[in-house]
Amino acid sequence: MTDRTKILLDESEMPTSWYNIVPDLPEPPPPALHPGTHDPAGPEDFLPLFPMDLILQEVSTDPYIEIPEEVQEVYKLWRPSPLFRAHRLEKALDTPAHIYYKYEGVSPAGSHKPNTAVPQAYYNKKAGINKLTTETGAGQWGTALAFACSLFDMELDVWQVRASYDQKPYRKAMIEMFGATIHPSPSELTEAGRAILAADPDSPGSLGIAISEAVEMAAPNPDVRYALGSVLNHVLMHQTIIGEEALLQLAKVEETPDVIVGCTGGGSNFGGLTFPFLREKMAGKMNPTIRAVEPEACPSLTKGVYAYDFGDTAGMTPLMKMHTLGHDFVPDPIHAGGLRYHGMAPLLSHIYELGLIEAISIPQSECFEAGVNFARTEGIIPAPEPTHALAATVREALKAKESGEETVILTALCGHGHLDMAAYAQYLAGEIVDFEYPEDKVNDALTRLPQVAS
Amino acid sequence: MTDRTKILLDESEMPTSWYNIVPDLPEPPPPALHPGTHDPAGPEDFLPLFPMDLILQEVSTDPYIEIPEEVQEVYKLWRPSPLFRAHRLEKALDTPAHIYYKYEGVSPAGSHKPNTAVPQAYYNKKAGINKLTTETGAGQWGTALAFACSLFDMELDVWQVRASYDQKPYRKAMIEMFGATIHPSPSELTEAGRAILAADPDSPGSLGIAISEAVEMAAPNPDVRYALGSVLNHVLMHQTIIGEEALLQLAKVEETPDVIVGCTGGGSNFGGLTFPFLREKMAGKMNPTIRAVEPEACPSLTKGVYAYDFGDTAGMTPLMKMHTLGHDFVPDPIHAGGLRYHGMAPLLSHIYELGLIEAISIPQSECFEAGVNFARTEGIIPAPEPTHALAATVREALKAKESGEETVILTALCGHGHLDMAAYAQYLAGEIVDFEYPEDKVNDALTRLPQVAS
Repeated sequence: MTDRTKILLDESEMPTSWYNIVPDLPEPPPPALHPGTHDPAGPEDFLPLFPMDLILQEVSTDPYIEIPEEVQEVYKLWRPSPLFRAHRLEKALDTPAHIYYKYEGVSPAGSHKPNTAVPQAYYNKKAGINKLTTETGAGQWGTALAFACSLFDMELDVWQVRASYDQKPYRKAMIEMFGATIHPSPSELTEAGRAILAADPDSPGSLGIAISEAVEMAAPNPDVRYALGSVLNHVLMHQTIIGEEALLQLAKVEETPDVIVGCTGGGSNFGGLTFPFLREKMAGKMNPTIRAVEPEACPSLTKGVYAYDFGDTAGMTPLMKMHTLGHDFVPDPIHAGGLRYHGMAPLLSHIYELGLIEAISIPQSECFEAGVNFARTEGIIPAPEPTHALAATVREALKAKESGEETVILTALCGHGHLDMAAYAQYLAGEIVDFEYPEDKVNDALTRLPQVAS
Repeated sequence: MTDRTKILLDESEMPTSWYNIVPDLPEPPPPALHPGTHDPAGPEDFLPLFPMDLILQEVSTDPYIEIPEEVQEVYKLWRPSPLFRAHRLEKALDTPAHIYYKYEGVSPAGSHKPNTAVPQAYYNKKAGINKLTTETGAGQWGTALAFACSLFDMELDVWQVRASYDQKPYRKAMIEMFGATIHPSPSELTEAGRAILAADPDSPGSLGIAISEAVEMAAPNPDVRYALGSVLNHVLMHQTIIGEEALLQLAKVEETPDVIVGCTGGGSNFGGLTFPFLREKMAGKMNPTIRAVEPEACPSLTKGVYAYDFGDTAGMTPLMKMHTLGHDFVPDPIHAGGLRYHGMAPLLSHIYELGLIEAISIPQSECFEAGVNFARTEGIIPAPEPTHALAATVREALKAKESGEETVILTALCGHGHLDMAAYAQYLAGEIVDFEYPEDKVNDALTRLPQVAS
């Protein structure tokens, strides 16, 4: 059975619930705090930004939440997504390891992001909202939400991090093709953007800044809500359909993962892939090593502090306890724009503190090398973000080669790189630079962490 | 059963033979002729260009040819490809029609082209060849052959039509990512290219010119062969796996097509989709209308003459009897670069003459409109080439709406448009122009048809 190239599920086998890991954890994650009072934030603190259905999911202690019929129908445009056995990569690496990758690039937006974009648009529409705002880094999230909004006939304004906006011009066309409007961030349209531009007219932007701009344009307006592509509990929960499917698919070929690696920016791809496996691990049914992989230029889990911080740069969001490099830290312009976030999902941060997962960081040149080798063996051109997971996969496969063990490695190829060819062209021309961990910039940013009594 | 969104086949259900329609036709197609003697061309006339296995397939009268195990293994990276029911497009058009599309954009190169690129690379490698040359229009074929050559560890030189080379800069990066070398055509590297540039330094190029350049670089060199992405019998035959799978998939939902539409440049996508259905039709098992759709700017089937002509501009290939606009006709630079070919596959031309298929032409603005509407309903961004098929699908669906009939429409979405976002950006900005049928230019080119005694 394990010699199959791809393991498919029929539509009728698609999971019909998302998995909420919170009730299964040995202790609950710390609550979000109101940014002014520092009291635990209640649902009402989130109401200017999100519809009640999503707020209830954010704080839910139910282990499973049913996927609405309307969302399932849209999911079927690309789900269940395929699980591949990387036979050709294994052969090229001459490794006895079995490498499996769950491929989310088959979605219309080309990444895992529609898994949460679609329910977020759906719940907003259900609450009578017809316009959303959001931020995007590399553009995968902006494309996904634009796609979702086009299906539910909603307006969307997207603020894209300037560094990615400039690197990936065709993202703009793609987002506009789905009917949304896109602005480079920082922009002159918001107070937050104008303040950044006043201090640095050439600011490459950051996810934190773009979030500030999108939040500022939504919060005061009762007809507009904001949508976030990662970080929050409900977002990670929507992504668990990835891991639930992968569990069913590995069971079909009678394999159990020894190592699971995934790239982490805000944490939604990683959480989505790994939480269902973590459930099995906590239940004693399997015992995989679960490892997050982040860019060396923006290593929130491995180098950040675990503290209450803002989700955005301007300090408008509730405070969340997470691994952070400081809310106004601006990462160097690596090509994996989706991993350029100063913080980490509070839920993942908590799980990391509990010792349930590991984390490493990898410089981007090693990642691009893994990406090119992957394309030349498996055929699929990966987005720069999952090349981090692929680089970690290669490391693990070479370790297996040394030990001679048939290690079963699972990873998520969370998106294709068709819109990232300019980055690959730079890599092929030998023009990719590695940014070292910017210790001084981080230490400086950490001096501005909000002071929260413990 | 018909309410499913996508109909999948397991790897174990993948067809293991290609279908050769030639022996099933009421009369055989006219032979290719030697360009000098005008005698029927023998296998030896093709040997400087192709390995014997492919030449034998080109002239085969066996109805089925087994797909080599090594090729099947590569096919499994993306095959069987999904068949989708376009529920959301149907709803948006308010049509009772059932619209099905076979999606080939799931392949690593993003189109149907790897279906023939992989066996072509395989048979060449098997014959001891380690280097290929080829032409490419929009870049789908060049990408596909680069992918195939990377899998079989072969070198590849690609000549890309200048108009597409300039319109789609990231194709170059993609082709280079798979390890191939790419040149804009016309180039200074060949006699054919230099002659064109001497006459018109700003020549936008054409598939015919690019073929001349690639052939010129292969034919005199015994260690190098040439590969063609469409037009020839063996190429169309390799693509029949599309139609064979679609037959199995439609049977799973108990549907029979009333109308099949496909876009036609050289004819390989159209032949691949329709030949297996044509077999069923000739056997009296179904009776679909089968319709080719070509661009108004390059309408070889609907406006060309049926005559012996060269496959390339410089006149180096054997003569083939086909619908042609003249081998030195240079089409206007429409965005569907893959449909900018002066001729039509001789086999399809013959089948058209036999009255077994219909043909229409559509201007590109109607096609782009269909493409955007498709993306906003079905999510997938189509390449400009299959938007021609989608525009024809929309026409047919609206006809069904008028008549109230549940017409079953089948089409092939032969590739995604992720590398064509510049074209969509132009469309969204209102900058797409329609090129009328260039009657005078065609009439002029037709004066230079080779004179062949009948």
